[in-house]
Amino acid sequence: MSRRIRLGMVGGSKGALIGPVHRAAARLDDRFEIVAAVLSSDPAKSLADAEALGIPHGYGSTAEMIAAGGLDAVAICTPNDSHAALCIEALDAGLHVICDKPLANAVEDGRRIADKVRETGLVFCLTHNYSGYPMIRQMRAMIEAGQIGRVHLVQASYRQGTLATRVESGDIPRRLRWRLDPDKGGTSHVMGDIGSHVHQLIGYVTRLDIASVTADLGSLVEGRMAHDTGSALLRFAGGAKGQMLATKVAHGAENEMAIEVYGDAGGLRWRQSRQEELSFVRNGEPAQTLTRGSPYLEPPARHACRLPPGHPEAFFEGFANLYADFAEQVAARLEGRAPDPLATVIPTAMDGLAGLLFIDACLKSSAAGRWQDVEHAA
Amino acid sequence: MSRRIRLGMVGGSKGALIGPVHRAAARLDDRFEIVAAVLSSDPAKSLADAEALGIPHGYGSTAEMIAAGGLDAVAICTPNDSHAALCIEALDAGLHVICDKPLANAVEDGRRIADKVRETGLVFCLTHNYSGYPMIRQMRAMIEAGQIGRVHLVQASYRQGTLATRVESGDIPRRLRWRLDPDKGGTSHVMGDIGSHVHQLIGYVTRLDIASVTADLGSLVEGRMAHDTGSALLRFAGGAKGQMLATKVAHGAENEMAIEVYGDAGGLRWRQSRQEELSFVRNGEPAQTLTRGSPYLEPPARHACRLPPGHPEAFFEGFANLYADFAEQVAARLEGRAPDPLATVIPTAMDGLAGLLFIDACLKSSAAGRWQDVEHAA
Amino acid sequence: MSRRIRLGMVGGSKGALIGPVHRAAARLDDRFEIVAAVLSSDPAKSLADAEALGIPHGYGSTAEMIAAGGLDAVAICTPNDSHAALCIEALDAGLHVICDKPLANAVEDGRRIADKVRETGLVFCLTHNYSGYPMIRQMRAMIEAGQIGRVHLVQASYRQGTLATRVESGDIPRRLRWRLDPDKGGTSHVMGDIGSHVHQLIGYVTRLDIASVTADLGSLVEGRMAHDTGSALLRFAGGAKGQMLATKVAHGAENEMAIEVYGDAGGLRWRQSRQEELSFVRNGEPAQTLTRGSPYLEPPARHACRLPPGHPEAFFEGFANLYADFAEQVAARLEGRAPDPLATVIPTAMDGLAGLLFIDACLKSSAAGRWQDVEHAA
Amino acid sequence: MSRRIRLGMVGGSKGALIGPVHRAAARLDDRFEIVAAVLSSDPAKSLADAEALGIPHGYGSTAEMIAAGGLDAVAICTPNDSHAALCIEALDAGLHVICDKPLANAVEDGRRIADKVRETGLVFCLTHNYSGYPMIRQMRAMIEAGQIGRVHLVQASYRQGTLATRVESGDIPRRLRWRLDPDKGGTSHVMGDIGSHVHQLIGYVTRLDIASVTADLGSLVEGRMAHDTGSALLRFAGGAKGQMLATKVAHGAENEMAIEVYGDAGGLRWRQSRQEELSFVRNGEPAQTLTRGSPYLEPPARHACRLPPGHPEAFFEGFANLYADFAEQVAARLEGRAPDPLATVIPTAMDGLAGLLFIDACLKSSAAGRWQDVEHAA
Repeated sequence: MSRRIRLGMVGGSKGALIGPVHRAAARLDDRFEIVAAVLSSDPAKSLADAEALGIPHGYGSTAEMIAAGGLDAVAICTPNDSHAALCIEALDAGLHVICDKPLANAVEDGRRIADKVRETGLVFCLTHNYSGYPMIRQMRAMIEAGQIGRVHLVQASYRQGTLATRVESGDIPRRLRWRLDPDKGGTSHVMGDIGSHVHQLIGYVTRLDIASVTADLGSLVEGRMAHDTGSALLRFAGGAKGQMLATKVAHGAENEMAIEVYGDAGGLRWRQSRQEELSFVRNGEPAQTLTRGSPYLEPPARHACRLPPGHPEAFFEGFANLYADFAEQVAARLEGRAPDPLATVIPTAMDGLAGLLFIDACLKSSAAGRWQDVEHAA
Repeated sequence: MSRRIRLGMVGGSKGALIGPVHRAAARLDDRFEIVAAVLSSDPAKSLADAEALGIPHGYGSTAEMIAAGGLDAVAICTPNDSHAALCIEALDAGLHVICDKPLANAVEDGRRIADKVRETGLVFCLTHNYSGYPMIRQMRAMIEAGQIGRVHLVQASYRQGTLATRVESGDIPRRLRWRLDPDKGGTSHVMGDIGSHVHQLIGYVTRLDIASVTADLGSLVEGRMAHDTGSALLRFAGGAKGQMLATKVAHGAENEMAIEVYGDAGGLRWRQSRQEELSFVRNGEPAQTLTRGSPYLEPPARHACRLPPGHPEAFFEGFANLYADFAEQVAARLEGRAPDPLATVIPTAMDGLAGLLFIDACLKSSAAGRWQDVEHAA
Repeated sequence: MSRRIRLGMVGGSKGALIGPVHRAAARLDDRFEIVAAVLSSDPAKSLADAEALGIPHGYGSTAEMIAAGGLDAVAICTPNDSHAALCIEALDAGLHVICDKPLANAVEDGRRIADKVRETGLVFCLTHNYSGYPMIRQMRAMIEAGQIGRVHLVQASYRQGTLATRVESGDIPRRLRWRLDPDKGGTSHVMGDIGSHVHQLIGYVTRLDIASVTADLGSLVEGRMAHDTGSALLRFAGGAKGQMLATKVAHGAENEMAIEVYGDAGGLRWRQSRQEELSFVRNGEPAQTLTRGSPYLEPPARHACRLPPGHPEAFFEGFANLYADFAEQVAARLEGRAPDPLATVIPTAMDGLAGLLFIDACLKSSAAGRWQDVEHAA
Repeated sequence: MSRRIRLGMVGGSKGALIGPVHRAAARLDDRFEIVAAVLSSDPAKSLADAEALGIPHGYGSTAEMIAAGGLDAVAICTPNDSHAALCIEALDAGLHVICDKPLANAVEDGRRIADKVRETGLVFCLTHNYSGYPMIRQMRAMIEAGQIGRVHLVQASYRQGTLATRVESGDIPRRLRWRLDPDKGGTSHVMGDIGSHVHQLIGYVTRLDIASVTADLGSLVEGRMAHDTGSALLRFAGGAKGQMLATKVAHGAENEMAIEVYGDAGGLRWRQSRQEELSFVRNGEPAQTLTRGSPYLEPPARHACRLPPGHPEAFFEGFANLYADFAEQVAARLEGRAPDPLATVIPTAMDGLAGLLFIDACLKSSAAGRWQDVEHAA
């Protein structure tokens, strides 16, 4: 096999939510070796935590870890407000970066990262993990191939019930606390945390730009400061329209992410709770259910499958697809060859910047009560 | 049994879409006798058509039919623009009225009907048939009983694929032609035809008033004049928020009407394609699936069931529930008694007027690109 | 319209389970006039009950009702053990018959009815109502047209939870009591009541004869005499195999009837809880979901639809399809013409006899613990 | 962390079906180090293949690998007919074993393995991976806790469409070829390959022994020698009954494994295509949908979850749960402590032997056409 990519991790200690997911995703396809980590600002504690996780080296800072050498890439799983400094530090050191979403809280920070990526030409992956699902890649490939014709209408949503009651009045875990703090988690919690996924997914499958938006962001639970619900109407460049909802007050909704896209020749629907399936209707014909792993899928979808249909793959595998594609791109650089083109469709810093610009427009629209143009990421 | 209600029908000849549904709904529970009909303005043709349908008397005009006497009530299934004149004519004649939705095209016409109903004190039912579904009545009863607490968020939608392509460029049936003609079918086809159902359903289950709206109405199919898609963000009196979608460009969507309501204690979800089921989540507990006909249902839901669970009841039965409740109210008047209170929850002229005021606000918001207050029906 | 068929009913008074369904089914399409009924052996009570139901004439016996004249056909909704005598009485009087299933309890009784039907040449419909569902007719038409190739495997089941606990130890309604009494309800309650539906459905869609069976019938609830569960392996003439289950101890199962058929070119699946849908897989292709009312359906399915897709039709409408087809056959006789061929696919006395012979073979197999040949109905 | 378990693999080279799954399952939770493998009988090729997979040492035989030392445990992923010799070789060398299912082809071989496990007292896990699914462990825990009362009825099935046509007449991959060869894959392909999963699952969740069976095994596709379909009626010790189906001719069925269990107080249902959900009905109450990861789950289910509900876990994670529990048991031995009791519920050699005895009884019943007692594994 190709040599394993030597990865350093920043953030994501044991109690964390997403750090363990990054590690499992990195392990699944065996293309990484996690050789170092910054799990605490106290070097001794970081070393102890690393040891507990079976990671050879623990450091008290990213600078130390980088200085120690031996890394190909860095994974960043820290609170949003720290992404810019850490990403830039790693990129400046010539390291490829895989960073948890959202790219940043502030548009300005996101732009600095995107600029640095462009400047250094290094590989950068933003872990909008839903784009790792095979049936999402199938959806993207089918739309690109014109199978539903010109896109008219998009509806997308992400429902959770995690903030359906006023949980923050109690004793909440640290991993939730920073997310609800506007300084660390961003001005609009719901939009940064899950609305950003919806925005990215829409762009990923349709490749359309949102030209303008009218949004209503806020909190529906009495006494809450953080936004728990964001709702928006969308107008795309070219005339299509859309609607999106991101909410955390939907009791019983367990990361219900869903997207449907209708064009002049057909429609496609997907929802995460049935991640193995993609519903496809050609005008006037019976609905078809396409399934992950099937031989009739498009190459980008087959590329993202490990198992035949009916041996379901899910969240870890979708996440791992981003890691695998990142590994392929990094390996190609290390080996001086072109990467597998099917591995080049993972979310980038530019996608992350587009997300921040969209949230910014939503905030402005919500405050002004009218349509707001969305600045184009460039 | 109580004597059957003697019903006259206006509109709904053989090729019509909704006329046959009204007749079947009237027959199902055997509480009506359809004794006369106006099926054409040509008296001879009306008589022949009536005979073909097994209706004893056919007339060339509503005036004639009323003059002939012998009626308790009139069912009106004509194009929207004629509802006001016909309803008022029947009400003036002392006849109870059951009228197809929407109440009218113009707010002013709707207000005239509502005023006349108030003035005459007669029974008036607007056939927003989805409120006849037992599980919708269950939803309403549970929300009223506080089972999901104070309502925070509502999402409702109605998707069709009937106008997903430019069908109107071909040879379309008459029953579709008048609907797409703004003069007969209303300024916004999609909102009058199905958006009005969504609006009514939201009000029916939550009993909340929509205070303001921001909407985006229009056509997504090139060259189409009639509106095929309406999308809106909602703010309710009292602070709840919502989102709605009514579209006819969703390939493969077969009258997919759906509503979900979340409160501070739980959530409820229903969709017409699973009309027998209501999903209920109490905060932190497993989702429950309540089923039509079950003994644990609330009285308003049990009242609307004929069969035990698993012998599914559907569209005709929901429609027939409106007819049965209308019959009960009319019979109570005829017999000088109070009606069964469970039969008094059918949509009224006032609900129809509220719908027209909502569509009016959507049109204004859509034109102005900003939030618009919704006038209260009174 | 054709003159309405004049129908007399035997059985099915107000508290009954299936009588009201027969009446609603007869009314739905307006092709019958229920002119007389035998609702009690006491003439005065029968008259009063008829009046309460809005039926013009009540009689104390079938003989009296027949003697009074004026009938085209008779509907029989009495306990199973009385079917033979009543059917034969009506047929002997030259009346067409629509009879509730099962045809009888004893094979001998069933054979007498079938012989009499053959002898008189009159129209006879056995209300195995699931064959009235449009998507079942679609399934039958597709199998006949070879769309799944030669049939290999059938699995069918009917699950209820109505006898999941020992309800009969309490105070049970009369309509359940006779069903659980072997003399009136038959030796194997579960097989007569719902197993007969499964058997009929298998034969209806595949047109294959069951050549032999190995079955295990009995009661799973302690202290129960009546059979609550029947399970069987099937071998068809021609080499296909199958499996069936009929049970009343499945908590929460609400008349879950389901059938799947696999051939050498594809497979078809249907279940009553999604009665609007038929799942179709052609070898190696994505599953298709065919929906009731769609223009691409086969003529026998379209014949059985009143409404476009998405306005769901359910139990009453399926039942009413048998009544409508029976009406068409009777009307054709009265008018001296050939019936619409699409109306000729309703279950007959011969189908009922085949069901009794199958149950008989199941009983023998269950007692002997080995495979048993199934006698062919002829 | 505890030291990683040093694992040697036998079988499962690159083109294999299940070998890569074993490796990914071993990696996911980072409790194993795959240090050696026997991937070919040619030492040089085995070394090259190992290197290609990133495994440090490749050997030409299990004996060599064992002799080289440094292993804690061995994973066996070879054709069924070789399991006995390899398992016994490893156990005799004092190594713990995790072995792919079925345990063997012949009852006698299975008994030899089970005896050797008992004799050596080493840890042995048979990878009936469906018992690794959290909601299956929930089902088992709920039945044990009496939540559905005394079990009455079980239905379980496993449907595939992989042999729906005569694929073996073409050029089939090696991994399928040995499975269809009775010598290597067992007398009844379908029963060894997937029927064994159904049998194990039934026993795992109910803890009931099957006392006798009547079965019908064979091939439904013309010209096929290998069994593609097995169907059986079951009688459990204690009076419960059941039905099972294992088939590979169900077009479109993608490893559809399903089980439902009804007792005197309620019922439970699960199917792999919705692996995150467990349906639970208590007599007379609405159905509940329990979901993986939820706080209300029983400890054995929570033990098997990595992610909160709505971040779905699937096939790899279920498989990895067996590896994780095996690791915990081996680690406990190595560290001289008792294992976590929640890690002790993985399938054993004795379960494998019970499966072989069941298949043996099915073969005898199928040949004789009558009920056959199932020998108890002991």
